[in-house]
Amino acid sequence: MKRPAPPGSYIHGYSRREAGRLLDQARTLADLLHHDTGYPPGSRVLEAGCGIGAQTITLAEKSPGAAITSIDLSETSLREAEARVRAAGLGNVSFRQADIYALPFPDGSFDHVFLCFVLEHLPDPVLALGHLRRVLAPGGTLTVIEGDHGSAYFSPDSAAARRAIGCLIALQREKGGNALIGRELYPLLTRAGFGNVSVSPRMVYVDASRPELVEGFTKQTFTAMVEGVEEEALARGMMGRAEWDEGIRDLYRTCEPDGTFCYTFFKGRGVKGP
Amino acid sequence: MKRPAPPGSYIHGYSRREAGRLLDQARTLADLLHHDTGYPPGSRVLEAGCGIGAQTITLAEKSPGAAITSIDLSETSLREAEARVRAAGLGNVSFRQADIYALPFPDGSFDHVFLCFVLEHLPDPVLALGHLRRVLAPGGTLTVIEGDHGSAYFSPDSAAARRAIGCLIALQREKGGNALIGRELYPLLTRAGFGNVSVSPRMVYVDASRPELVEGFTKQTFTAMVEGVEEEALARGMMGRAEWDEGIRDLYRTCEPDGTFCYTFFKGRGVKGP
Repeated sequence: MKRPAPPGSYIHGYSRREAGRLLDQARTLADLLHHDTGYPPGSRVLEAGCGIGAQTITLAEKSPGAAITSIDLSETSLREAEARVRAAGLGNVSFRQADIYALPFPDGSFDHVFLCFVLEHLPDPVLALGHLRRVLAPGGTLTVIEGDHGSAYFSPDSAAARRAIGCLIALQREKGGNALIGRELYPLLTRAGFGNVSVSPRMVYVDASRPELVEGFTKQTFTAMVEGVEEEALARGMMGRAEWDEGIRDLYRTCEPDGTFCYTFFKGRGVKGP
Repeated sequence: MKRPAPPGSYIHGYSRREAGRLLDQARTLADLLHHDTGYPPGSRVLEAGCGIGAQTITLAEKSPGAAITSIDLSETSLREAEARVRAAGLGNVSFRQADIYALPFPDGSFDHVFLCFVLEHLPDPVLALGHLRRVLAPGGTLTVIEGDHGSAYFSPDSAAARRAIGCLIALQREKGGNALIGRELYPLLTRAGFGNVSVSPRMVYVDASRPELVEGFTKQTFTAMVEGVEEEALARGMMGRAEWDEGIRDLYRTCEPDGTFCYTFFKGRGVKGP
């Protein structure tokens, strides 16, 4: 049974220069991912792995009467998330440093668990889901949102761009994560013991008629994320400089008026049986 | 300027043994693709490339007051389509043998044009769209539905399965078609002179909670289509027998209770300016 990698070795999510990217993504995609996120007044909700709070604000706004507990492994991220939530004037979130694999809560402490872009970083997502299931009350739900970098395709197509994305996937895998986890949510939730599992894909389709997505998703979210591993991919010899540059140029090329870009997030939900 | 390939060289759509597959697909996916298909009473609709009528019945049922003209290059397919439409008791469709590149209709003859799984087979889709635009009245719409085989991904992932799908894509390309055309609908419609172009993806997501799609889409539609090029792919040495068998086995493997399968169709719409 593997343990989670320490925070410093995560591919993304912890560095300050990536904070802007995460917040941009949160704004642009909030509606796609969260139009059906929301918990009834009085419910106890655990947000596992809140990071810098990119999703926490949306979660808190959409469930104004719920009592949200947001946890993260990193104290630094937690402090940033807390500042952000306070600045937004939201009073229904409390923060606590905690490890998903050693949750400091008794069995059945929560009515709902929510986690977004967290499982992709964990070496043993089923084990993590099992721990989260433990702190759910019978009949409680777990909701998980993840991306899938293998769901990215675009026009004009480009072998170099696909190879650059492949570097991101390979580096995340080496660190114990899984950048292709979106497509696996159904089996993972099922294996972790959840019932009534349902998964709905949330596809981001970008063309020139959707300029906010060209900017906010293709450029500032996806391509920026690929560019984020440039140094490591080149240092490791995973690609040569010329081909890497070509790949990045081709990703930007999809942002031209005749380009298109596709990516899919997956939202899964399972219920803890009685 | 290229001319369309003769019917006999199309990758699929013309052989009798594939007719069952096309009809299965039409039924399973009708709602996903056609829930917003429908034309008002009195409108003149051209269905271009009706084939054996797989989409024609849905089109006619959803537009009972419209006058539909369905054309195809193949007399054999047309006769089959006509028999099928008559058997369904639909009286609002007339059939005519015609070439999209030499339409026997005066300018502005139709209020709407509809085509489904046709552009993927044509060497010059923009030219074809231009001809179809000519027979549209000013303000008329063109609606096009296409798949994109590069949008297929699945769990468990499999390099052999991806290579087998690659054979299908390569063979279609060699015959002048484009199996990755879905992602290109926006630029193609724009380039052909249509205005207000909008494209909406229709993603098919399959897991064990959706058994009708496991059977009707993953097995009988997509995997059957890949299996359809086995002889040609092996004869051409594109893959060896062992790897091919592994690829097909891995596609069926995604139909097990812990497997998932994703594929996306694209529906595009453009308007002919005044």
